[in-house]
Amino acid sequence: MLNDPSRKYRPFPQVDLPDRQWPDRTIDKAPRWLSTDLRDGNQALIDPMGSEKKSRFFDLLVKVGIKEIEVGFPSSGATDFDFIRDLVDSGRIPDDVTIQSLTQSRRDLIEKTFEAMAGAKKAIVHLYNAVSPAWRNIVFNLDKPGVKAIAIEGAQILAEQAAKYPQTDWHFEYSPETFSTAELDFSIEVCSAVMEILKPTVEKPIIFNLPATVEAAMPNIYADQIEYFGRNIPNREAVVISLHTHNDRGTGIAATELGLLAGGDRVEGCLFGNGERTGNVDLVTVALNMYTQGLHPGLDFSDIDEVIQTVEYCNQLPVHPRHPYAGELVFTAFSGSHQDAIKKGFAHQAKRNDEIWEVPYLPIDPADLGRSYEAVIRVNSQSGKGGVAWVLEQDYGLKLPKKLQADFSRTVQELSDTTGRELTSGDIWGAFQERYFINKSGRFELFDYAENHAGSDRIFVGKLKVDGEFRSLSGRGNGLMSSVIAALKDHGGPEMDIVDYSEHAIGHGAGAQAAAYVECRTTDGRSLFGAGIDTDVATATVRALLSAANGI
Amino acid sequence: MLNDPSRKYRPFPQVDLPDRQWPDRTIDKAPRWLSTDLRDGNQALIDPMGSEKKSRFFDLLVKVGIKEIEVGFPSSGATDFDFIRDLVDSGRIPDDVTIQSLTQSRRDLIEKTFEAMAGAKKAIVHLYNAVSPAWRNIVFNLDKPGVKAIAIEGAQILAEQAAKYPQTDWHFEYSPETFSTAELDFSIEVCSAVMEILKPTVEKPIIFNLPATVEAAMPNIYADQIEYFGRNIPNREAVVISLHTHNDRGTGIAATELGLLAGGDRVEGCLFGNGERTGNVDLVTVALNMYTQGLHPGLDFSDIDEVIQTVEYCNQLPVHPRHPYAGELVFTAFSGSHQDAIKKGFAHQAKRNDEIWEVPYLPIDPADLGRSYEAVIRVNSQSGKGGVAWVLEQDYGLKLPKKLQADFSRTVQELSDTTGRELTSGDIWGAFQERYFINKSGRFELFDYAENHAGSDRIFVGKLKVDGEFRSLSGRGNGLMSSVIAALKDHGGPEMDIVDYSEHAIGHGAGAQAAAYVECRTTDGRSLFGAGIDTDVATATVRALLSAANGI
Repeated sequence: MLNDPSRKYRPFPQVDLPDRQWPDRTIDKAPRWLSTDLRDGNQALIDPMGSEKKSRFFDLLVKVGIKEIEVGFPSSGATDFDFIRDLVDSGRIPDDVTIQSLTQSRRDLIEKTFEAMAGAKKAIVHLYNAVSPAWRNIVFNLDKPGVKAIAIEGAQILAEQAAKYPQTDWHFEYSPETFSTAELDFSIEVCSAVMEILKPTVEKPIIFNLPATVEAAMPNIYADQIEYFGRNIPNREAVVISLHTHNDRGTGIAATELGLLAGGDRVEGCLFGNGERTGNVDLVTVALNMYTQGLHPGLDFSDIDEVIQTVEYCNQLPVHPRHPYAGELVFTAFSGSHQDAIKKGFAHQAKRNDEIWEVPYLPIDPADLGRSYEAVIRVNSQSGKGGVAWVLEQDYGLKLPKKLQADFSRTVQELSDTTGRELTSGDIWGAFQERYFINKSGRFELFDYAENHAGSDRIFVGKLKVDGEFRSLSGRGNGLMSSVIAALKDHGGPEMDIVDYSEHAIGHGAGAQAAAYVECRTTDGRSLFGAGIDTDVATATVRALLSAANGI
Repeated sequence: MLNDPSRKYRPFPQVDLPDRQWPDRTIDKAPRWLSTDLRDGNQALIDPMGSEKKSRFFDLLVKVGIKEIEVGFPSSGATDFDFIRDLVDSGRIPDDVTIQSLTQSRRDLIEKTFEAMAGAKKAIVHLYNAVSPAWRNIVFNLDKPGVKAIAIEGAQILAEQAAKYPQTDWHFEYSPETFSTAELDFSIEVCSAVMEILKPTVEKPIIFNLPATVEAAMPNIYADQIEYFGRNIPNREAVVISLHTHNDRGTGIAATELGLLAGGDRVEGCLFGNGERTGNVDLVTVALNMYTQGLHPGLDFSDIDEVIQTVEYCNQLPVHPRHPYAGELVFTAFSGSHQDAIKKGFAHQAKRNDEIWEVPYLPIDPADLGRSYEAVIRVNSQSGKGGVAWVLEQDYGLKLPKKLQADFSRTVQELSDTTGRELTSGDIWGAFQERYFINKSGRFELFDYAENHAGSDRIFVGKLKVDGEFRSLSGRGNGLMSSVIAALKDHGGPEMDIVDYSEHAIGHGAGAQAAAYVECRTTDGRSLFGAGIDTDVATATVRALLSAANGI
């Protein structure tokens, strides 16, 4: 059993903010987006990216519309430094894209960081040092003034180095690292000291990144922290508040969203939530959450499969089948009632005279992400008749009448219970042919027939195999169907009446076929269902009747 | 580019609740837990579970301490019905575990549901019908009274059927399905009507499950909805509010947590967040989130790997490497600064005289989940010297001095930059032996030596291979080390002084070995680092000196 946790773990303290405003707000503006895939994401990979993968990832980020890209930690080693230098020197950075590099607050590392990016049109140097008690006490053995001095010294070196490379438009980001587990007033104190050195303005603000380095509290607490910071940091209009949440408690996306309500201006994260441990916030989900609320995020995921493919290649980590918006299974319904509702939603959508998306169980139109509807409905033992009918209609053009759907669903249910696995479209089509004697011999098998007129009556004369032997059958009725039924009755077939009948074309033009469905009732009250397919509409009907007779 | 979404998607309406209380609350009590792995989870699998997998999953749920288990949808098919009947008939359900089954509101389906569970000691029948406008208009073509009538009729049949099987203690759950996208007052109206039929009491309350069937809004909105419902449902003390969140926006865990603040009493979900589309809320994460706040969830995940193994087997879906608490990578640090902080955290933890867990970057003690620390620190090109030192200490017992760590980290950095992949412990040990001539020939190779005393001096007489040829070397000094250095100098080796020296035992008892490390400086100012390992402490020292000389 799990031990009593109360002696080992403490509840996270609340923020004293009874007049918090964020729960009454909505997100009405897209934030600035910063991808840290090439830095925070990369440093958490089993096999970090080499320059080929980094380049490919960089190009993807540009393509989806990210305008601020943290390209690495250039003082950490040659791979990062060389990649960044090459980005700058090759001129591959679009004019509207700003690169950013992370550095600790040490002179040699900061100098290296400037060296890596010097010559870029515009660049952000991202300075950080940890401010929380655990890091002060355990990692650095420093008191508050000591930690603050590190930040101040770093800021001074930033100002000095920026002056050394005037050809680049330098911007600054400072992270009071481990912000979410630090004393709020101390973080504000340190940030204020950094501001005094770097003197940000409304035109050239400083970015304060407020990381939940390790997610340790509920997302509403993070929102309280952000609102508190925004209310108390001096010269707020010269500050860009950047949110940087991790996902240790599985609430990183929520923390970012509530943080935006609380005043966040910018979001740092990775595609599909890569990053240290449980990952950074997932930029794709945050952006598409805005999109489904009618707010354009300014990012382009209209070809989500391409994005997945590149990210999986570069990170060598999978996107989970249930990952919001991107997973293989997120637009898939196996359950019958879900399938039924989705079908009705599509039909309703087609009928309505507006663009509003309202399909049950599908919070976004898969087509908006470049996905097709094909994979939406899949069939297994949890599926009812609706899913089966959908598959036969989508893939084989058959529009089964309701009661025939019900009849056939029993066959499918047995098959899926027996196989215990998902049924493919081919499985279902095979079962349909088997059940209704399509391209398959039954007791009555049609070879040829003629339909003669006798006054207002019709006389059916057919060449059939009956119980494996060729026979000539004839019957008389007031139409084709009754004449066929009469012929069957006279030659050992069931005595039956027509209850329902329908027919439709499959496809268009010369290659079109006809599908006919019948429901018959025998004199002893049994229902018989039949289906027939033929290039000729009348022959399809005859086949459907024979199919019903075969099914007895 | 993604289209303008504003014509297709609408912002989710806010709840008018300016005096909401939940943002000021904390979770101070574990909820009742309901697993719907065998129902909601199962119906969303590519290959639904057969009876063997269902049994195995059921046993796991019992083992981790879930007391309410939704075992299936018995009217949906033979697989579910037979499994549930067998559970009841075999007597495998522990006395403190209650099974639950879902049913739509139709007489034949409800009857089947009672048939499936009759004879169980205690059972919950879970009735649902969808109440939201989209479902009313698109799926059922019913107005509000029509939808309400379905719920009332279902409730009446519940009461009637329960009376028919008095040997079972029946309880009822009603879901105003699609609650989160329905009008709150209408959901309350329908639930109130159901209460009038079923007459719950404080002693035998009704469970109202309030699902975010499709997650369509931010988690704070769900919390507002829950608080509103709890404030306005009549006879609140006879009601158990059950939360059932999905994860379409990636905020299902947050919605459940904020819903608990807002008055939820019970949580429905699946292990690791299986379920329709993006899944249900993940019970493991919600429970362990409580645990890391010092609140015992009443569930046992002390052998998380066993839980993962069984769930992956039954669902045939992977747990993602970054899944909170459970993923392969969530306790892993590759980055040098993270590794350094974690090492210090462990050391601090060992020194402190309390049980409070406070290790940087590790929000939970991996040991609490049955995980070891071994995988915590892994080495690749993003790792600094800290990680390498950790691995050599954990796996080979070597405690490298700081400066030798720095020396060796250059070797490791080159290796990881070259290979571009994670380095295994074996890779690092191999590189260490290679770099410091351990079990590897260098210019000076020791075969045997004697150490003679001459007054207060020592005379080293060694049999060595030098440049591939056997030689006898001797040197005189005031101790072992200086005599070896003298011998080397006289036979073509470098002229050097000792700057630092340390030695420690590896292991205990007769099999123990000694590791010696030296830092020397040559007369022209170069630093030479050496390491030697031997069963004899003095020989280890000699080897370390030869190692330094070899490294020139």
